[in-house]
Amino acid sequence: MILTVTLNAALDVTYRVERLHAGGSTRVRSVAERAGGKGVNVSRVLHGLGVDTLVTGLAGGTTGRAVRQELALAGLPDALVTIGRETRRTVAVVDEQAGETSVLLEPGPTVTAGEWHSFTTRFTELLPGAKAVVLSGSLPPGVPVDAYATLLRLARAQRVPAVLDTEGEPLLAALPARPALIKPNADELTATTGLADPLAAIAALRTAGARTVVASLGPEGLLAVTPEGSWRARPPHPVAGNPTGAGDAAVAALAAGLATGAPWQPVLARAVALSAAAVAAPLAGSFDEALYRRLRDQVAVGPFTKP
Amino acid sequence: MILTVTLNAALDVTYRVERLHAGGSTRVRSVAERAGGKGVNVSRVLHGLGVDTLVTGLAGGTTGRAVRQELALAGLPDALVTIGRETRRTVAVVDEQAGETSVLLEPGPTVTAGEWHSFTTRFTELLPGAKAVVLSGSLPPGVPVDAYATLLRLARAQRVPAVLDTEGEPLLAALPARPALIKPNADELTATTGLADPLAAIAALRTAGARTVVASLGPEGLLAVTPEGSWRARPPHPVAGNPTGAGDAAVAALAAGLATGAPWQPVLARAVALSAAAVAAPLAGSFDEALYRRLRDQVAVGPFTKP
Repeated sequence: MILTVTLNAALDVTYRVERLHAGGSTRVRSVAERAGGKGVNVSRVLHGLGVDTLVTGLAGGTTGRAVRQELALAGLPDALVTIGRETRRTVAVVDEQAGETSVLLEPGPTVTAGEWHSFTTRFTELLPGAKAVVLSGSLPPGVPVDAYATLLRLARAQRVPAVLDTEGEPLLAALPARPALIKPNADELTATTGLADPLAAIAALRTAGARTVVASLGPEGLLAVTPEGSWRARPPHPVAGNPTGAGDAAVAALAAGLATGAPWQPVLARAVALSAAAVAAPLAGSFDEALYRRLRDQVAVGPFTKP
Repeated sequence: MILTVTLNAALDVTYRVERLHAGGSTRVRSVAERAGGKGVNVSRVLHGLGVDTLVTGLAGGTTGRAVRQELALAGLPDALVTIGRETRRTVAVVDEQAGETSVLLEPGPTVTAGEWHSFTTRFTELLPGAKAVVLSGSLPPGVPVDAYATLLRLARAQRVPAVLDTEGEPLLAALPARPALIKPNADELTATTGLADPLAAIAALRTAGARTVVASLGPEGLLAVTPEGSWRARPPHPVAGNPTGAGDAAVAALAAGLATGAPWQPVLARAVALSAAAVAAPLAGSFDEALYRRLRDQVAVGPFTKP
């Protein structure tokens, strides 16, 4: 089982509208709700691949209950820890005429010290069943900035490899606890390290404690720097669609690779194919299965040598 | 007790944002949630006046539970009938830089024939305790277009006077059941009757069955055409603020007048003062109490003779 952690889970609400009237009233044509948050998206992709997965993290209030209900409907088992405050919502307004989407992001619920302690206890209990853990996304208010360092040390103590997908302070504070793999995108590399050159940024993150860095470069694929070597993996052609969730799909493939101990080249090929297949699907956490099967044998993975 | 009916209740969500980025991501600074819908606003105003009131209507799902929780917190008793589908939300995005508010209105939940039947039964049971009923707002999908006619006949059978505040088809279909009072605004008068002249529109609505028509004319106050005479009631000065809920405040005063059988002139004065005091308060259903007390003796109510 691959355990995913979403400390700042969300109820993702999607409104389709004919035209968004700023400063006026807009009738919503259709409403869709899904459990969201990066770890939840990873579990959804793993479930779609037929890989056993369990969702944990924090959820509270009526929105938290809605998150759990939707996970159950999607066939995703959850071990979310209940908190007192309301799980945040995100509201995506899809403007059909303008062909653009506006997203409103609620702040996360404030988590108490006792709730955070309960979560670490629950996480420790879940680790013996996990072949890999995925720690994804931002931290809600109240959770200590070194939360991921704490979870990485708990996982390491039980020899469970961990993928960490976050940015900024929570990423920097986690690196001393030596994650097996981190997956920043190009913007996150620069924002976190202050270095404009991706290779310099990757080197800095590895020096700070990350064993492997897999940088996602959007339509250009992935760049992996590992103790076993460096690779560049590119999709055979660009794919049009919704890039939200593409990084989470890559993380799902990377975590599945860590869990089985597969060699890097096929794992990176699957990560690129899954990421492209996620772009082709309308919702984060979904992917185009036929496209994934077609692409995974076409991804070019070659050794990468510093230019 | 004054019974208010909100068939299309809502969970009103307010997001404050620094600047709404159309087509991008916007972080929400603060989130507030209130039970909403026009009848709920009327009950809130009545409660603020110290008048005994009970909220009924339809509510379902997690949003319906949130509506009930908030009503309980506000001290408003409810006799809402539970439905299977989710109560709608409205999302108001207050853009602090632009100084404007964008409102997203979800469609209402589809109501089954069985749920509508359960509601009419519950409504009939509640009528003996009511001195007046208020029927407010739009109808959710599935509720018959003559729903308000049905409720008006049930109220009439128990001699409970009714205020109806709706527009378009649901208003036209209700008039044959002879509501004691309807409260269209200027736009609704025209939209419902197709007549540009407010007086002609009022006459048409009375011919069709409304005993009294009190037209709200925004900052110009009210125009009342009743079997006992016609009056024009004007506030002493304009009040700046949020006009949402001003009509509901007027309805609260009118319903309280019907319930006690008070003469029209003081009732209309209170309706205008309460409406202006609601404009001065930030949220629908709230009013500025000091302003209300000051204004109610200053409203000019004079007989109205056709120009």
